[in-house]
Amino acid sequence: MIIPKIYLIGSGNVAWHLAHALIKHSLPLKGIWSRNNLTALELSNSVNVPLLSKNDLPKLQGVFFLCVSDKAIPEIADFLSSKILIHCAGSVPLSVLTAYTNNCGVFYPLQTFSKYRNLTFSDIPILIESSNKEIEKLLLSLCHNLSCKNYFYTSEQRLKIHIAAVFANNFSNFMFTLAHYYLIYNHIDTDILKPLIKETFDKINSRLPIECQTGPAIRNDILTIEKHLSALKDTPDLKKFYSFVTESIYLFYRNNEKNTKF
Amino acid sequence: MIIPKIYLIGSGNVAWHLAHALIKHSLPLKGIWSRNNLTALELSNSVNVPLLSKNDLPKLQGVFFLCVSDKAIPEIADFLSSKILIHCAGSVPLSVLTAYTNNCGVFYPLQTFSKYRNLTFSDIPILIESSNKEIEKLLLSLCHNLSCKNYFYTSEQRLKIHIAAVFANNFSNFMFTLAHYYLIYNHIDTDILKPLIKETFDKINSRLPIECQTGPAIRNDILTIEKHLSALKDTPDLKKFYSFVTESIYLFYRNNEKNTKF
Repeated sequence: MIIPKIYLIGSGNVAWHLAHALIKHSLPLKGIWSRNNLTALELSNSVNVPLLSKNDLPKLQGVFFLCVSDKAIPEIADFLSSKILIHCAGSVPLSVLTAYTNNCGVFYPLQTFSKYRNLTFSDIPILIESSNKEIEKLLLSLCHNLSCKNYFYTSEQRLKIHIAAVFANNFSNFMFTLAHYYLIYNHIDTDILKPLIKETFDKINSRLPIECQTGPAIRNDILTIEKHLSALKDTPDLKKFYSFVTESIYLFYRNNEKNTKF
Repeated sequence: MIIPKIYLIGSGNVAWHLAHALIKHSLPLKGIWSRNNLTALELSNSVNVPLLSKNDLPKLQGVFFLCVSDKAIPEIADFLSSKILIHCAGSVPLSVLTAYTNNCGVFYPLQTFSKYRNLTFSDIPILIESSNKEIEKLLLSLCHNLSCKNYFYTSEQRLKIHIAAVFANNFSNFMFTLAHYYLIYNHIDTDILKPLIKETFDKINSRLPIECQTGPAIRNDILTIEKHLSALKDTPDLKKFYSFVTESIYLFYRNNEKNTKF
């Protein structure tokens, strides 16, 4: 199918990567508007696509991608209720758009986006959902043009996948952050962790992470855990954190053995 | 220097990988003993090195590598107090050995070891410590022969590096485990997380993890956090865990802005 004109609302990390991917794949991105003038201008310049004013939007015909914060979606949907609206959020149900328009969908790229990263958009799984078959065809065609794999999940499932993504990315990154923080706090070069972090990822490429767990918590090695807690006495928040995660690991594997849920 | 005969005490994951590395680099591993007969036999067969009995040990001359649990180290050190003893533990100070012998050291490979993994031992940082210059020369020569990078750290520093390793490997792996667990619990294919996990790792290869944090916790996006907590009501331990880590991320970055410790 012929992709209609595309307009992008927003200029954050998702908008940035989506805009670049659309242009790279010669898709008709025709304008950008964002509440934040500065980042909107920066994005508009970097993809060479016109910067729009809010008053322009109701006059335009095409598909509007709402790459805005979750809480801004209803307000924009109300303002553009006669248009085809697609949001890109993991934890916002499609019903937030169907409250305003019959022609709407979800295009949720399951990835962590930072502006400075060069991402290959075609590697990103796209979770799609739509209010009707026409929008479904449009979203499938977009995924096809972007060389992305698409997945059909309901709003409820997408929320759960978003939660899993929080654990897999946000929470794991925080563990690496705390490891680095503690070494820096103790004037030790953080590069010494590099081979360990590499092996952490290599391992879960070939096995389930549940099979890769090592360390004092899963062994219930009280002696080592006590030594660590004692060493952490100068950093009480880190100590509390170590203690909580250690107990959780022990509890999770004990529950798992007994086949009870966590 | 000429490496003396090496004897290995233990048959766990560290012993397994060290034995294979020694043989691969043609180093004189001459015998293995472990309290666990079964795994000792398996290791002895796999590297084609004699299996020893405990009574043999006091008669042998050489270097004894203690790859045993932390709490077993003093007992073995007492039994072999006339020998050169090297332990391989992150959180055991050298003084646990110097209490029994003047000729001792630490050879701590900073890595997560699982038997089934093919590890390149030469990629592993080795943290060494020794009771005298002769043992230091021996450990340096061993690292050199194994093509490993060696690092001089005190017992106190090694303990801190071990704690950082718990965060960087054990705790991060647990986050991947929970992400998988939650998807499996909800009958969703876990492969959908692969590109996200790959990017999590790729990101921290080029930037500090503290700069890579994204997601609802660091944005203090209460709306999304509340949705996630509500969706997690069926798995109360996971909900409690989500809540604790989310609060910790928020607190950590707030403290960091104010330059106060965590």
